[in-house]
Order: sequence, then structure tokens, then C-alpha cells
Amino acid sequence: MTHRRHFPHPSIRRLPSYLRLLLRLRDEGLPKVSCTRIARELDLDSTQVRKDLALTGITGRPRIGYILADLIRAIEGFLGWTRCTNAFLAGVGNFGRALIGYENFRHCGLNIVAAFDVTDEKVGTEVFGRSVHHMRDMPVLARKLGVVIGIITVPAAAAQKVADTMIESDIKGIWNFAPARLELPEGIRVENVELVSSLAVLSVAMKQN
Amino acid sequence: MTHRRHFPHPSIRRLPSYLRLLLRLRDEGLPKVSCTRIARELDLDSTQVRKDLALTGITGRPRIGYILADLIRAIEGFLGWTRCTNAFLAGVGNFGRALIGYENFRHCGLNIVAAFDVTDEKVGTEVFGRSVHHMRDMPVLARKLGVVIGIITVPAAAAQKVADTMIESDIKGIWNFAPARLELPEGIRVENVELVSSLAVLSVAMKQN
Repeated sequence: MTHRRHFPHPSIRRLPSYLRLLLRLRDEGLPKVSCTRIARELDLDSTQVRKDLALTGITGRPRIGYILADLIRAIEGFLGWTRCTNAFLAGVGNFGRALIGYENFRHCGLNIVAAFDVTDEKVGTEVFGRSVHHMRDMPVLARKLGVVIGIITVPAAAAQKVADTMIESDIKGIWNFAPARLELPEGIRVENVELVSSLAVLSVAMKQN
Repeated sequence: MTHRRHFPHPSIRRLPSYLRLLLRLRDEGLPKVSCTRIARELDLDSTQVRKDLALTGITGRPRIGYILADLIRAIEGFLGWTRCTNAFLAGVGNFGRALIGYENFRHCGLNIVAAFDVTDEKVGTEVFGRSVHHMRDMPVLARKLGVVIGIITVPAAAAQKVADTMIESDIKGIWNFAPARLELPEGIRVENVELVSSLAVLSVAMKQN
């Protein structure tokens, strides 16, 4: 049996913004950084910052803080972003194209190696240097390229079928942008991105003005 | 002084997925729905569902549940999605284009009426039927069209300048997709979307496999 620690999601969600700040501070030549400084820059509570960073196994020293390079390495290591993970993207619509072209993913170890669609006009083309294949070729290509992450950017109605093909392709984690709840076998990780959730928060806040 | 209630963000974030399910059930001809059914469909806890829905001011009746039409109206009303809100989008890159073309926003009362950029090749063109204007024309157009929401899809380095122009344009809420923390005056609402936050959660979960 594997020991599976529970890490709080809100803390994990904050790690990429810490990382971005730290990389900027490193580029500015800063050798060390304190929780207080991080908290001030990101408008967070410094106790929260300390707790979040402790997740990665690193602890700062009183009056010194963290060595910047160590902290960056600890966060990247915790997230598994030091190694490249190969991913497939299914659904070459506007949103899919935008994700394929999103340069920042390289800093997150995410390497979209190929795209998939079922439309004749799209299959066989290239999007930002990545070939668009037919969905039916996914299982063979996934095994050949060692792909473990699948990104779903198809319309809601097609999402489950695409997810099923990803499972068949031995993909272990799904990043789902389709507004649909997927039925997945045990052991497959899924992270649903609901863009309008964030719009809901903004709408409610503005109604209160 | 206005009374400003605090609504828990995780609950607000779940409302759009309730709404989507309820609209589907309505299309299927269902007149009523229970918390248990909603919880089962969305893989949530039914006590949590009841609490979330209570935010909107509606309460279900024991053994009957909610009248579907009433519940839909309550959620849409709470979110302010019954009326259309005019929005501007700044930054006509891949991601900006994808948002302009995203049909689902219409169900959320969000109406992107025009787009903005500073690039000569983009200004004067049309994207999914919306004109692309130069950033310098934003203040005048915002007042003319009664725009209250600004969507930022420019690179991080340009985000603050765009936000400043939005403030100058009397925009009251900013939906920020740029990986940058914005400095904004009191009273301006901002909702930052950090796509890689979600990737971080998936990455950590997969490392544990």
C-alpha cells in the first residue's frame, strides 16, 4: 500500500504564483527571500506563506529566510516540474489552439507533444509546430511517446468519449476544460477547469458594489 | 454605508456547475429536483449542496425538493446573470481570441462588445464579429457603451498598464488572465485566473500515484 499524504489544494494552487515571483526575484539578482517579503508582494498572510512553503519540505531560517535557489528547487521538485511531462491535447478549437500556443507551460514541465481532432480539415495540419492527428490514432501514439497527461478542449458533448480514448491510451491524468463531468476509472486523476466559476465570483462581488 | 455580506468563494464557484446541470434537467423535462439528486450527479455532498443553494435565498421543501424553474431563476438572479453585462477584452492573442469566441459566456450574462490591442495589424480588424480597437480609444468607448467589466489577456509585462487604462475608463471589475498581480484602487473588483494553479494540483496528484 502506498502512503498518500493529503496536501491542501488551496496551498498547492498558490505555489505557481510563489514560483513566478521567486524566478523574477532571482532574475533581479536577489540571493535570499523572507516569508514577509513574499507575503507583501503577493498580498497574502506571511503565516500562510510559511505553511504553504513548508509543504515542499523546505523551512526558512529566522532572520535569514530562504536561499532563493533552494526554495525554487524545492517548489519545482514538489510539483514535479523539474522533469518534462508529455501531454496530448484533444480538441483543436479556439481554446485548444490557445493552450497549444501557451509558452508558459514549458516552465511547468508540460510538453504538449501532439494534438488530436476528428475533423477532416484539422487532421494532418500543424498548430504551433504540433501535428494534429485523428483521435483513433491516440492509443498507439500515446504509448510510443510515453504520454501521461491528456488535455480535453472539446465541446461538452464529446468530452466523455475523448476521456474514454485517453484511458484506453494509458493516460493517467486528465486536465479537463470541457464543461462536463467525466466518469473515470479509479486511479485516474482529473482536474476540471471551470472558467465561469471565476466569473461567478467576480459577478457576485460586483453586484455588491 | 452598504451592507456587504460575505459569501464563501468555494460555494459561489460551484454555482455555475449547478446551473449547468439544472438547465440540462429542465431540457429533459424534469419539473423538480432534490439536493440528493444534484449531489449524486455532481459527485458532491448533499448537505454542501443545500448550503450552497441557500446562498441564493431559496430553500427546498422536504420530500419535494426544489421547483426546477425557481431554482434556476434564483441562481441566475444571485449571480446577476439574468441581465447582460457589457465587457471589453484587451489583448487579441490566442487566448483573447478564444475567449471572444467562447459561446458559453452568453449564458453568464457576459457580453464582450469589443476588443482592444496596440498592434497595427490587429487594430481595425474583426474577431468573431467584434471590432478590435486601439487601447487609446478605450475610455471614450467604455463610457459610450456602458462597459463595466474588463478582461485582460495581454502578456504579464503589459497587464498593469492595461488595468490602469481600464480604471481610467470607469470599468469596475477586472477578469485578469495575465500572470501578473495588479495594483488597483479601492472598490475595483478583480478576479485572477491562474491556469497553472490547476495544473499544479494535477501534477501533485499524479506524483502521488
